[in-house]
Amino acid sequence: MAAAPATPATDRRVAAQRLGAFCLAVLGAAGADAATARAATDAMMHGSCLGIDSHGVRLLDHYVRALEGGRVNPRPSVRIVSGFGAVAALDADDGHGALATFEAMRHAMELCGRFGIGAVAIRNSSHFGPAGAFALRAAEAGMIGLAVCNSDSFVRLHGGAVRFHGTNPIACAVPVPQGRPWLLDMATSAIPYNRIQLYKSLGEPLPPAVASDASGFDTRDPHEAEMLAPLGGAFGFKGAGLAGLVEILSAVLSGMKLSFDIAPMAGPDFSTPRKLGAFVMALKPSAFLDEAAFRAGMERYLDALRRAPARPGEAVMAPGDREWAEADRRATAGIPIDPATQTAFRALAARFGIKPPFGEDGG
Amino acid sequence: MAAAPATPATDRRVAAQRLGAFCLAVLGAAGADAATARAATDAMMHGSCLGIDSHGVRLLDHYVRALEGGRVNPRPSVRIVSGFGAVAALDADDGHGALATFEAMRHAMELCGRFGIGAVAIRNSSHFGPAGAFALRAAEAGMIGLAVCNSDSFVRLHGGAVRFHGTNPIACAVPVPQGRPWLLDMATSAIPYNRIQLYKSLGEPLPPAVASDASGFDTRDPHEAEMLAPLGGAFGFKGAGLAGLVEILSAVLSGMKLSFDIAPMAGPDFSTPRKLGAFVMALKPSAFLDEAAFRAGMERYLDALRRAPARPGEAVMAPGDREWAEADRRATAGIPIDPATQTAFRALAARFGIKPPFGEDGG
Repeated sequence: MAAAPATPATDRRVAAQRLGAFCLAVLGAAGADAATARAATDAMMHGSCLGIDSHGVRLLDHYVRALEGGRVNPRPSVRIVSGFGAVAALDADDGHGALATFEAMRHAMELCGRFGIGAVAIRNSSHFGPAGAFALRAAEAGMIGLAVCNSDSFVRLHGGAVRFHGTNPIACAVPVPQGRPWLLDMATSAIPYNRIQLYKSLGEPLPPAVASDASGFDTRDPHEAEMLAPLGGAFGFKGAGLAGLVEILSAVLSGMKLSFDIAPMAGPDFSTPRKLGAFVMALKPSAFLDEAAFRAGMERYLDALRRAPARPGEAVMAPGDREWAEADRRATAGIPIDPATQTAFRALAARFGIKPPFGEDGG
Repeated sequence: MAAAPATPATDRRVAAQRLGAFCLAVLGAAGADAATARAATDAMMHGSCLGIDSHGVRLLDHYVRALEGGRVNPRPSVRIVSGFGAVAALDADDGHGALATFEAMRHAMELCGRFGIGAVAIRNSSHFGPAGAFALRAAEAGMIGLAVCNSDSFVRLHGGAVRFHGTNPIACAVPVPQGRPWLLDMATSAIPYNRIQLYKSLGEPLPPAVASDASGFDTRDPHEAEMLAPLGGAFGFKGAGLAGLVEILSAVLSGMKLSFDIAPMAGPDFSTPRKLGAFVMALKPSAFLDEAAFRAGMERYLDALRRAPARPGEAVMAPGDREWAEADRRATAGIPIDPATQTAFRALAARFGIKPPFGEDGG
């Protein structure tokens, strides 16, 4: 991420396996059924392993609160409620967003196997988590995966003065022969909202034209920032248009809440289901052309991209390259846990009688 | 378009019907079969009616050159060459891009009617024209339409110092009850390349961070601009990622040329087919949820969007609103024809013995 300040130095690092086991145990102790605990953990660990910490294990405390408060059904009956050819609608029964979305992608992939393409609209879901985790499931099975979701309003329209769309991410994963998938996972806002919190805590000015004050005017003071700008700066109609596409696929096509109708993720209400929609799709390359030709095309494309000349001091990367490199580093060095998350984990560990994932020796 | 300078005042205005008839006659005289002439005219008239003049009748002279030179097959056998469930591959037989893409969308819509979704990869095609024209066909039939295409390299990667992707547009059209479709049609570059020509001819500086010189460094001098920046400015990895998604769907999934392998649109070679790929998709809302619920959702979304407070001196619009308003103005006032296109039209008219669409009285 071009404009991200450095990670604070007070993080602790924890091995992925230990961290995942802790999340599973905590979610189970909070009442989640095994499938919910597994799906929520898998999604958070995707974020934490790939360096997308905003959607990593930082969310565990939030998810426990949502499960215990009643916002999220801890033992949902997630099921396909209608289908037509290569598409379907899945009802998440107010369950965890990751459970619903992994299951929707599983069904989209099954449809894709039969029809070359499959799409599923998700109803009655909750917080989406890292969109890339869901798209990736398709790529791991040799398919192109797409996952989008709207979310509570944080982003103004182009020319707008109020929060309108959510950060409405678009994730797409494409299988790569002898390599890890091409993986795009981007908010349609200029920056993620939690980036503002980060600049605030570091006392640094925001990049230009990424956030607005309460009147919709651009501000570089993170303390004044009340909303995000759509992707594109002076050409923000493009970012707002993409956010709209996500909104239509996620919320309109599922009959769920539009961004400005969604209760804030942060509460205070943690008892009412948020009725989120989402949309996933899978495409099978070999349904369009010879599998070998597809593989050769991806190889040639990525090879040329990675060899393309860069501006001095800069680098060119394919979507996902930065994240996969970070995953390799974290596989060795462990996953950094920020101080606030450490505190939350200690409290959860104490409440549920579970050993925290970091030892008293600081390891 | 936020940063577009005003249209020069030396344009002539012509009624749409007269302009379309002229295009049809010229294309026919240049050897195009009736289907090619119709499709190319429909696509150009979409651009000219909606104010997307870069993809309007300005292209007629270019298309004649491509048809006569042999780059574009004037009497192609466009056909579906393979299919699997809800997807197919269409071979354009080196025909006109608009003919191939309208036909591909027609087939995608037929698949969509049977399976709720349909997608077609297009092979051996040529210049795409206005992507929105193809997406719109689906919306006019009550479906969500998507159309993407890669094109010859003009856009650097994020951090890149050379042209890599084409302007790789994304178009999506969504049906709106009692209204004209929601219509997004955007290049994944910061600005279109022809915008640079416009700034050049007007002697105005470019907006910041939209174009680079021959070394990939940002420049505001249109005479120095050698390539475009990806959408997103400091967050150009998003624009480059979206361009990559278009590249994969259009070129890799069709087995066609990657952007950097495509012969330049501007020639000098006008005899060799350019072997372009493209990708279209249609989704049927009623396959996902009750049709009335979808319509109500779109109405509520668009109503809220259009009523959303704007920043002082600015306006909020849904994708397509600006274009539909311009279409209304042009339906009354006529379509402006720039001086270079007037000259080209006079030459075409003289060569083919066809009456030009503007009278000698200047009308």
